Amino acid sequence: MTPAQAARFAIRTGRHTGPTHGLALGYVQCNLVILRRALAFDFLVYCQRNPRACPVLEVLEPGESEPRLSAPGADLRFDLPKYAIYRNGIRTQEEHGIEHLWEPELVSFLIGSGITFDQALERAGVPTHRDRWVLRTRRPTVPAGPFHGNLVVTMRWLTPAQAIVATQVSSRFPMNHGAPIHMGDPAELGADLQQPLFGPPVPALPPGLIPVFWACGVTPQAAAETARIDLMITHSPAHGFITDLLADQLCIP
Amino acid sequence: MTPAQAARFAIRTGRHTGPTHGLALGYVQCNLVILRRALAFDFLVYCQRNPRACPVLEVLEPGESEPRLSAPGADLRFDLPKYAIYRNGIRTQEEHGIEHLWEPELVSFLIGSGITFDQALERAGVPTHRDRWVLRTRRPTVPAGPFHGNLVVTMRWLTPAQAIVATQVSSRFPMNHGAPIHMGDPAELGADLQQPLFGPPVPALPPGLIPVFWACGVTPQAAAETARIDLMITHSPAHGFITDLLADQLCIP
Repeated sequence: MTPAQAARFAIRTGRHTGPTHGLALGYVQCNLVILRRALAFDFLVYCQRNPRACPVLEVLEPGESEPRLSAPGADLRFDLPKYAIYRNGIRTQEEHGIEHLWEPELVSFLIGSGITFDQALERAGVPTHRDRWVLRTRRPTVPAGPFHGNLVVTMRWLTPAQAIVATQVSSRFPMNHGAPIHMGDPAELGADLQQPLFGPPVPALPPGLIPVFWACGVTPQAAAETARIDLMITHSPAHGFITDLLADQLCIP
Repeated sequence: MTPAQAARFAIRTGRHTGPTHGLALGYVQCNLVILRRALAFDFLVYCQRNPRACPVLEVLEPGESEPRLSAPGADLRFDLPKYAIYRNGIRTQEEHGIEHLWEPELVSFLIGSGITFDQALERAGVPTHRDRWVLRTRRPTVPAGPFHGNLVVTMRWLTPAQAIVATQVSSRFPMNHGAPIHMGDPAELGADLQQPLFGPPVPALPPGLIPVFWACGVTPQAAAETARIDLMITHSPAHGFITDLLADQLCIP
């Protein structure tokens, strides 16, 4: 078994139930979005129009749960440790498996996440163990069909030298959100520092550090909320899907 | 007017009717695919599964002909010098405008083309005025819905040093087919050297040169033929759509 297969096996058999950060290093981890066929085209166009937030790695056939291209033999109904269920735009429940919610009309989308990216930053000397925050902004995404809403971003605080290296490194990973979308004043994005979606309360910015912002894979969940989509199933934040794809194979040299 | 707007104006007013190579240098040129809404999801998934051949730059709303994101004010019914019409998988006619064929259910896709890419190669000292060929292969694409068929490639003959630089440079343009998909023996791709889709007859390979192959934007046209799609409208080969996007803004640094 490869490390990716071993990690999925541990998740499927209930031996691993927590966040997936640090599992199967070197393999691409994904965000998951599942919705009904009737909305699948609009959602895929939404992703195409907002590629920084929603880089699509695989689209499964309606009703299929095996990602045959990125993880043959896996099953998206079992192989994530935790799922979030949205009904009419409201997050109603969390589940450890979604077999009982499965429908033949469900279409699954695997979307690149920033976890891979962290490793590349570490290799380039940019520490990633420090605080990071997931923040709502007031910057609108480009709508498609019913999908609309504001961009969600990840914010890190870096030194100027780290910000430069982080820009270089992340630019090489277009399937993992790519280059930063903004640096500096959070107000320019309308970033909501008061209520982070993830991370501790945001303290005052220490002198000498620059806030650096990347588009975040939570954006489609915010769009589902804004658009009150009847049914959307996603990974629970930080509980991603581990593919067989090697991170370094998806990056630009 | 920008050079891109001026070039589109010359095309719309019939002053420019030929190939678009060399027009509005520095601006991204696109391939065009138009088909009915009922097939649009399957086609977009086909592009997602074959991103080297079909990097999608914009998807328009059904019935819309103004690419509001990549060329506001333009009109895809008029602003290409020549179109090809496929019915039931057969190329039945060429047109200089498609207003009379327009339907409210038509969805337009703009797909990155390699023209931009040529400029970057030239800037890096790789000559692009030499012969190139568009070839069918026996390498299957990943199917989606009715769309399937073999990859179409562009072949150039380069010195080893040029092949290395061309790989470096083209890797930076994932929206223009990106890195080569193969180098060396054409037989490994099953490339059809006998009947190029574009370019002169293929002579014997001169000593010291390496065939280098890129995925080609003609691939979706081949898929439409294979799948006998009822109606597909495309640009005519070499007669692309000029956007307002700057090539250097879409490339990876």
